[in-house]
Amino acid sequence: MLHGHGDDMYNCPQAVKSNFSSNIFGATDLSGLREHLTARMDRLSSYPEPEPLTLEAKWASAHGLHPGEVCVTNGATEAIYLIAQAFRHARSYVWQPTFSEYADACRIHGHTVKAIFTAEGIDDRADLVWLCNPNNPTGEAHTKHLLSKLIEAHPSVCFVIDQSYAPFTCEPLFTAAEAAATPQVILLHSATKRYAVPGLRLGCLTACRRLSDRIRAQRMPWSVNALAIEAGEYFLEHTPLLQPSIEELLSETKRLIDALSVLKIADIWPTDTHFFLARLRTGNAPALKKYLLDTHGILIRDASNFEGLDETFIRIATQTPEDNDRLIHALDEWRQAAFS
Amino acid sequence: MLHGHGDDMYNCPQAVKSNFSSNIFGATDLSGLREHLTARMDRLSSYPEPEPLTLEAKWASAHGLHPGEVCVTNGATEAIYLIAQAFRHARSYVWQPTFSEYADACRIHGHTVKAIFTAEGIDDRADLVWLCNPNNPTGEAHTKHLLSKLIEAHPSVCFVIDQSYAPFTCEPLFTAAEAAATPQVILLHSATKRYAVPGLRLGCLTACRRLSDRIRAQRMPWSVNALAIEAGEYFLEHTPLLQPSIEELLSETKRLIDALSVLKIADIWPTDTHFFLARLRTGNAPALKKYLLDTHGILIRDASNFEGLDETFIRIATQTPEDNDRLIHALDEWRQAAFS
Repeated sequence: MLHGHGDDMYNCPQAVKSNFSSNIFGATDLSGLREHLTARMDRLSSYPEPEPLTLEAKWASAHGLHPGEVCVTNGATEAIYLIAQAFRHARSYVWQPTFSEYADACRIHGHTVKAIFTAEGIDDRADLVWLCNPNNPTGEAHTKHLLSKLIEAHPSVCFVIDQSYAPFTCEPLFTAAEAAATPQVILLHSATKRYAVPGLRLGCLTACRRLSDRIRAQRMPWSVNALAIEAGEYFLEHTPLLQPSIEELLSETKRLIDALSVLKIADIWPTDTHFFLARLRTGNAPALKKYLLDTHGILIRDASNFEGLDETFIRIATQTPEDNDRLIHALDEWRQAAFS
Repeated sequence: MLHGHGDDMYNCPQAVKSNFSSNIFGATDLSGLREHLTARMDRLSSYPEPEPLTLEAKWASAHGLHPGEVCVTNGATEAIYLIAQAFRHARSYVWQPTFSEYADACRIHGHTVKAIFTAEGIDDRADLVWLCNPNNPTGEAHTKHLLSKLIEAHPSVCFVIDQSYAPFTCEPLFTAAEAAATPQVILLHSATKRYAVPGLRLGCLTACRRLSDRIRAQRMPWSVNALAIEAGEYFLEHTPLLQPSIEELLSETKRLIDALSVLKIADIWPTDTHFFLARLRTGNAPALKKYLLDTHGILIRDASNFEGLDETFIRIATQTPEDNDRLIHALDEWRQAAFS
């Protein structure tokens, strides 16, 4: 397992006042969910369904799928590990830099893992191609059109597309129903990201029946806890209340990027979502992370351990305007100290 | 996955008034835990530790172990699947009849699985021997003395001993520290059973450092949800308040068994814990289960799908005296109808 994911507050002796380190919008209003789960706390006293079939059927119905095309998991992470397990010893291409768990899961399950960095890296020797769209950590989204062409060009390859950040972009992406109608595509979905509940552990994958059955056959019973199932049903009915306005969040992302650009401390990657990658022009990520935490109680993601990146890289997920202003001011102070 | 575990209330359109179907003491007072978790609901907004190292260290310290000898899991079920995965393609002997997940996990991970029914079935061709102690569904406990002799007699065999029900017997069993000092033994522990929280998903395995490291290397990050980790820390401080008196529970079990024996409807296996197996002298388990549910809102475990058992077997876990009286009266009614 990679050491140093984002949201590593548990490692911080200091109080974290603003957390930019995981790709989660921390100001999501969860009061309704917390109230709902508090009222359902008795669910802890019964076993959840061994397979979360009821939630799968409801999710499927809401997204125009057959229930057998949905596999609800213990966070999207379980989906990643189940896919790797179902395709044990496969040849997996991982489109880097990206979330480290695809390669980690593949290695645990005996895959041959190859890093690719462009679409041209894909060839028909691959059994699986793993990509994240929009991508973590770059924020870049490939359009449905580009991916469709790639999928068509490689009919023997199964594409695992992690769409955890789909609710946070305006780019046209595959719907779950479109992907399930394509026998070579597995989509990953994350309640963690969409509803800002990383502690709950809820995600799912969607795919055609044949692929979904193959993967579900690997799943242990009761992998999804009872409150996560409760929350999943709540989300299906309350999504509009729980999601920030994507237009506002992307416009705030642009404001933050513009303000950081003025500081000239880093080159910022173009992004199609609410987080972005930046390469420092001076100093390094571990030192900057420490400075921001010690001096300002601000947590950012040191992105040096993504494959293909080095210790000049940081990743930042846009938060509220107030939090973002604090970050801008803190980075301005750091800049003045660093360049003086 | 086996269909028809206990606690299948999610399949019941009727209200269940008394639940004897899972090996859980349903009257455990969880009010303090529910209050604690309600106050910590903000934990849903942060990632849990990728590996629950803090809880592992505290658990280890409470049980006289090194932190590296504890692997906290998403219910004891994840421990079972991780062990099967770490020993992929092994030759596993499963001491039947027992919990179906040992064999299921082994099959998913390519083991050769052999059912054994007595200690004499163990030989040195086994890589792993899986047993549950006290055993589910029989309630029988093997003493530490007997198991020590078996382990000593088969030094090349790794014994996976599921002690989920250890807190519910007075028989002398291995402590976690004793097992970790024996390089061939892996113990499983279950918060689900001990604290009656099957919806939470929390368990662990303990073993010597070498075995524990091997198994932990298979674990995905964030497999244990944030509230389960919170609860785990709470349990370490509040165990005496959360456990029923084992003497009272076993004495009530004896009273229930004696009352059922008087009805002469079934042969009851000797048990060392709070649940027991019974073989009906007339009728069958599916029909009796349906009768009790439809007529009395009582749920029992149809034990016909345990390997080695047939549809004359039921399993019952002792509940409160009032619940137990309701079961006795309901079975008496059924007897009168069946024999009239």
